[in-house]
Amino acid sequence: MPTIDGDRLLKDQRALADFGRWKTGVHRPTLSPQDMESRKWLASRMTEAGLDAEIDGIANVIGRSKVSGPHLLIGSHTDTQPYAGWLDGAMGVIYGLEIARAFGADGTCRQFGIDVASWADEEGHFGNLLGSRSFCDSLPQTEVDACRHRDEGTPLRTALAAVGLADKPRSKLEPGHYVGYLEAHIEQGPKLEASGLRIGIVTGIVGHCNFNIMFEGEQNHAGTTPMALRKDAGVALIKLAAAILKRFPEVAGPESVWTIGKITLDPGFKSIIPGRADMLFQFRDVDANVLKGMRRALDELVQEANAGPCKATLVLGPQTAPATMAPRFQDALERAAERHAPGKHIRMPSGAGHDAQILAARLPSAMMFVPSIGGISHHHSENTKDEDLVLGCQVLATAAELILRGA
Amino acid sequence: MPTIDGDRLLKDQRALADFGRWKTGVHRPTLSPQDMESRKWLASRMTEAGLDAEIDGIANVIGRSKVSGPHLLIGSHTDTQPYAGWLDGAMGVIYGLEIARAFGADGTCRQFGIDVASWADEEGHFGNLLGSRSFCDSLPQTEVDACRHRDEGTPLRTALAAVGLADKPRSKLEPGHYVGYLEAHIEQGPKLEASGLRIGIVTGIVGHCNFNIMFEGEQNHAGTTPMALRKDAGVALIKLAAAILKRFPEVAGPESVWTIGKITLDPGFKSIIPGRADMLFQFRDVDANVLKGMRRALDELVQEANAGPCKATLVLGPQTAPATMAPRFQDALERAAERHAPGKHIRMPSGAGHDAQILAARLPSAMMFVPSIGGISHHHSENTKDEDLVLGCQVLATAAELILRGA
Repeated sequence: MPTIDGDRLLKDQRALADFGRWKTGVHRPTLSPQDMESRKWLASRMTEAGLDAEIDGIANVIGRSKVSGPHLLIGSHTDTQPYAGWLDGAMGVIYGLEIARAFGADGTCRQFGIDVASWADEEGHFGNLLGSRSFCDSLPQTEVDACRHRDEGTPLRTALAAVGLADKPRSKLEPGHYVGYLEAHIEQGPKLEASGLRIGIVTGIVGHCNFNIMFEGEQNHAGTTPMALRKDAGVALIKLAAAILKRFPEVAGPESVWTIGKITLDPGFKSIIPGRADMLFQFRDVDANVLKGMRRALDELVQEANAGPCKATLVLGPQTAPATMAPRFQDALERAAERHAPGKHIRMPSGAGHDAQILAARLPSAMMFVPSIGGISHHHSENTKDEDLVLGCQVLATAAELILRGA
Repeated sequence: MPTIDGDRLLKDQRALADFGRWKTGVHRPTLSPQDMESRKWLASRMTEAGLDAEIDGIANVIGRSKVSGPHLLIGSHTDTQPYAGWLDGAMGVIYGLEIARAFGADGTCRQFGIDVASWADEEGHFGNLLGSRSFCDSLPQTEVDACRHRDEGTPLRTALAAVGLADKPRSKLEPGHYVGYLEAHIEQGPKLEASGLRIGIVTGIVGHCNFNIMFEGEQNHAGTTPMALRKDAGVALIKLAAAILKRFPEVAGPESVWTIGKITLDPGFKSIIPGRADMLFQFRDVDANVLKGMRRALDELVQEANAGPCKATLVLGPQTAPATMAPRFQDALERAAERHAPGKHIRMPSGAGHDAQILAARLPSAMMFVPSIGGISHHHSENTKDEDLVLGCQVLATAAELILRGA
């Protein structure tokens, strides 16, 4: 059995958190100086671990095992949300590195190849899961050309050129090369901690649909325009929002979530009737049929809203399909979890998106969660107990062996 | 009968609109260079009309008739909302100027004094109806010291000093000096035009109450936080907003208006459950009891909202009491309107606030409206037909004579 070195693991986790350290967390946006420094550091650690390491043309860091036996790919991402936590995806990348080292050091596992990846821009600074999509051949050149930084507007091409990656090719998945893909991540939610559990075995990754719903009415003076003559875009928005909150529990599945993240009334002054209003609405579920049902309900509600004095328009934004995790890999994770933390594991969906949902379209894939203290994520106070970090890595290593042995 | 000179009136209206001209409208915020230039121009026109003109320590322009007979005060304001219309209050000030000239030129009216005022900052760039409140002794020195520009934060004191008014005294209403106060204004709403009418006789000015309603919940990941565990401040806001829209028609009067002017969800991203939410809510009515009923309903709804998972806090913002217009002055306006535009006038409340609501606490006061084309106001396309502008001024002049004669 490959045995991980907990001290070495934690030391590397902490070393990685030095790049872009901010308060108790990390600020490491994609292609920032600190992001590129961390990628070079990671590549050097991969090389020390005996892997062939490269940073490819989209900034993926990939370390390839030189052995000829069956290969398993383990990865996640090391970029972060702005001023966010030190673990998030970075944990899953260092897990891969440590498991590669543990396999290399174990006489019975040496014939198995553990390849390790840090996918670029999982956090969406320039686009949507760019690194893993590039690797899986689902990122067309035209999309790369069109991507811009979400805040600053810098073209992705310019940013890649600035860090010396303009002429590097993008690495692609070779069909048949891998047995599958594993990814570990912090849970980013409260379920494991609240239930006193230590390992989450992901059954599927939710698909999600984003919408911008726009309302057009008539801007007017809030004192002199009688109620009966108003075309108040804000009122139209509130009525639709309330109708969504009432209807969605009836059409949603038990694990569905839906969120109104932003509302804007225009012009947004106390004495002016809003002439325009916008809201961002999102829903998620692991079941494609449930997603369809929610979409149908939303369409109906928007249509009903259009019977009022304002025009409502539904614009579909980014969406992802749900991804099922390979049942055989889930079983391996469960057996490994039962070995190292008996009774302290559970199967659960992932409410957040991950690179594994991209890999799952090409390879049998699975994911594993460790508990998030207080359920906190995307904040500098995000954390996981040291013993949970070490346990998680050992469970993943053991599962990797079971998978590679076909056991 | 004092006869106004329509050409002279329109020429002065257009001359005033040259100060801060912007597209088809005017940008003349309080104490801006163009505002001060317009005040100096106005004072010089008052002097030419035979009045004693001064710009006082709060930037009110006051022109005093030198005759010894009974005096009537006519005024409004010449400051504007940002990039707004050319008439608004400016019309009422030029009406006063023209009526003072018409009285001076009429042998039978020469013994009556028409004083003219342009009240400073009616539009609230630095405070709330500062000029008329200063004149009516309801603006304490401490409030003047505390006022700052609503956007730029410049202290009012600094702005007054910059235009040379630091050491000027503030003019105050002398008890017993005036028979009353008259103010003309554009309607700022669609009622007159929609009914084919030309003169509105204001019965009262609505009081209004402004509120900021704040919701505190718990910011969290929109994918990983189950619906049942959420404290979504945005959901709490939407539920209260919908409850207000449902309840207010039941407690409001026939002329009441209520408006949600702004909604903010914090942090306002598609994948984050809002941890905070805010909304600006306002209601208006001419009847103090109706205002009380709406306030009671709002208090109840906020209390009910607090039974949910988020904390709702109601913060009272600026408010004004409703003001009744002097019945005798309303009668004079109606007789004058019937003389010059038979059957084309109506009594109506003012949904917007005006300086007359301040003056009404100290003097018998009345207001008159002329039609707004398309009901538009606070926009550069605001306008009124030339013949309505001329008619309105003549109606006000005739009403002034009736009032001064005690007829």
